[in-house]
Amino acid sequence: MDNHGNGTINIAVLGYGTVGSGVVEVIETNKTAINKRAGAELNIKYILDLRDFPGDPYENKVVHDYSVILNDPEVAVICETMGGIKPAYDFTKQALMAGKSVCTSNKELVASHGPELIAVARENHCNYLFEASVGGGIPIIRPLNYSLTAEKIDAITGILNGTTNYILTKMDKEGAGFEEVLKEAQEKGYAERNPEADVEGYDACRKIAILSSLMCGKNVKYEEIYTEGITKITSADFRYARQMNKSIKLLAMSRDTDRGFFAMVAPFMISREHPLYSVSDVFNAVYVHGNMLGDSMYYGRGAGKLPTASAVVSDVVDCARHLGKTVMCFWENEDVKVTGIEEDEGKFFVRVPAKQKEKAMGVFGSLAEVNAGIADEFAFMTHVMKEKEFNDKIKELGGCINRIRILSA
Amino acid sequence: MDNHGNGTINIAVLGYGTVGSGVVEVIETNKTAINKRAGAELNIKYILDLRDFPGDPYENKVVHDYSVILNDPEVAVICETMGGIKPAYDFTKQALMAGKSVCTSNKELVASHGPELIAVARENHCNYLFEASVGGGIPIIRPLNYSLTAEKIDAITGILNGTTNYILTKMDKEGAGFEEVLKEAQEKGYAERNPEADVEGYDACRKIAILSSLMCGKNVKYEEIYTEGITKITSADFRYARQMNKSIKLLAMSRDTDRGFFAMVAPFMISREHPLYSVSDVFNAVYVHGNMLGDSMYYGRGAGKLPTASAVVSDVVDCARHLGKTVMCFWENEDVKVTGIEEDEGKFFVRVPAKQKEKAMGVFGSLAEVNAGIADEFAFMTHVMKEKEFNDKIKELGGCINRIRILSA
Repeated sequence: MDNHGNGTINIAVLGYGTVGSGVVEVIETNKTAINKRAGAELNIKYILDLRDFPGDPYENKVVHDYSVILNDPEVAVICETMGGIKPAYDFTKQALMAGKSVCTSNKELVASHGPELIAVARENHCNYLFEASVGGGIPIIRPLNYSLTAEKIDAITGILNGTTNYILTKMDKEGAGFEEVLKEAQEKGYAERNPEADVEGYDACRKIAILSSLMCGKNVKYEEIYTEGITKITSADFRYARQMNKSIKLLAMSRDTDRGFFAMVAPFMISREHPLYSVSDVFNAVYVHGNMLGDSMYYGRGAGKLPTASAVVSDVVDCARHLGKTVMCFWENEDVKVTGIEEDEGKFFVRVPAKQKEKAMGVFGSLAEVNAGIADEFAFMTHVMKEKEFNDKIKELGGCINRIRILSA
Repeated sequence: MDNHGNGTINIAVLGYGTVGSGVVEVIETNKTAINKRAGAELNIKYILDLRDFPGDPYENKVVHDYSVILNDPEVAVICETMGGIKPAYDFTKQALMAGKSVCTSNKELVASHGPELIAVARENHCNYLFEASVGGGIPIIRPLNYSLTAEKIDAITGILNGTTNYILTKMDKEGAGFEEVLKEAQEKGYAERNPEADVEGYDACRKIAILSSLMCGKNVKYEEIYTEGITKITSADFRYARQMNKSIKLLAMSRDTDRGFFAMVAPFMISREHPLYSVSDVFNAVYVHGNMLGDSMYYGRGAGKLPTASAVVSDVVDCARHLGKTVMCFWENEDVKVTGIEEDEGKFFVRVPAKQKEKAMGVFGSLAEVNAGIADEFAFMTHVMKEKEFNDKIKELGGCINRIRILSA
């Protein structure tokens, strides 16, 4: 039942890092508005961290032992902002089994154990909510679960990683190379010192696995999603892209088609007319196609302390309003059969050495040349073909300099 | 309490026109998915219309007398897709007083009687929901009410009318004049034969009144929103706009500032970098600024039979899941003090006869000339000033050819 009382709801925050301290800041800054919407006063009772924070206004809330939180019957909602699988998984499961709702920004955990934890929450009449796990502060989980309820959603295409979008935007605007821009992004704190999770597409892969699962109501395993990063994209690729009035974006997508369920993370050439084209810098966007509504898009800051924390707190408000009740979320623990990428089809942009021109024309038949004035190269767009057919042709050609998929309009 | 049963929920549709027949089509087409999410089978029991529909598959559901619906205790949810104030207001109020939830696409009624009808619903433990009243199929009401609950929203800027956005997009792309494009839009069915409600901004005004009220939690009266249409925009204005890498859009906006609460509907010059710039044709978008999240945007089809109907049905699902309970909506029957537009401030684009150049430079002091090669004219952008100050200066100049506000970045 909705909570309309004026009681206090005690909260524990796990991890007093960037997002965790953001949660505290959001609750403090917007106290009046948040408590009104929650129908109760949100009180931060504990902050779990290995460190102490002498001088911090919340210093006396800090505990080092999770059992203090777990065994306190007054704690109703837990914000898990630790990240990683261990010990977040155990902490979350224990909390849910004790009937405490958990709100998380932890995409790894949601992508790997989402349906199990949702089921545990359901059995214990509480909630496992994860608005902050995809798209940072952009409302996307709740719109999928609560708003697009009259739709059959058949495609989701997202720019889900701010770091790579920042890098690609810079490469496009400044003609700079990947390594150079990555270094600058690291200096600015937009990229991690170990950038692998971002630049190899692993982060986007977890996020599209979550969105795809909600789209299907069943589990899309992130391990089965074909994932390709942006490390092979060069300034020359952007010269060709500009020539075609396109840009290059790292897209995470899934499509439910007659030919199967497809999911992938990869760099794509995208036309200037597409609404995702103008999603620049660290911004994220999710483009959703439903059978009645057609296209809709959700855009905003995909990361950052306060946007992400705002999403966590919106989940806390949802929990506060539904104490003792599990809100709607269809994500069953039954795996979706993901069709192999070889069966997927589309157009490709290809660069080969100039001397291969005749052979490429022979192998691909009809193709559209792209000339960006780059010496000793022949570049072209293929017609629509299966990935398998494309790979066979490239093998026949003896390889290529680079190839990038093209997003169909 | 959430309805998790497997019962039947009986629905009546008021008005079997475009949206009403769309509601029936959406429920029919996506039956399985919708019933799963509703937790019950949605059954269309009645369709109220003055006409008969011989041969229609729902022919035998059609009734002409509202009291049949009102007095049937089995009807739990009513879709009001009639539009207009009379008799929609009476029908809605009677339904809510009988404990029947009402889902509506009727922006006029929501803008004029929203808080009253929401209060009646609350008193009678049912719901008055209006997702379809703004932005057609774009989820925007529910994100404001359920998702952005940790935010203090301080600005909303929307492209909320598809007809005018279609006209302005055409004028921009084809260099055509307003009358010419309007005529074409009427022929295509994108504009009404009497286009006043769209082109004068009245439709957008109702919609921003609704969004502004939800932003404030209090009532923003649409009568107090300064509203200016697009009938004075010419192809010459677009020539200047292109010269500045801008376009012209009809924006509906409200801002909660230290200087007061401002709301207005008017054509604006908008830069290519702004996410609203690329919202073209009949698409709508709502750009929301929150104090924690920063900017977010919601984009999609703002009108049309199926998108609008999809939003109505998403409200029906919400009602079905909350039978006997009123869901969260803060829109109190207390009027927001709207500050007069004279106190608002911004930059302006101005065109005067060439012979006025010296005088304009004297009156406005610092200004930035805009040259689009149009003979006998002098055009410029002002610095930031209050509307009142601007109007005084224009009066001092003895008028101008045209002036358009410029959206600040």
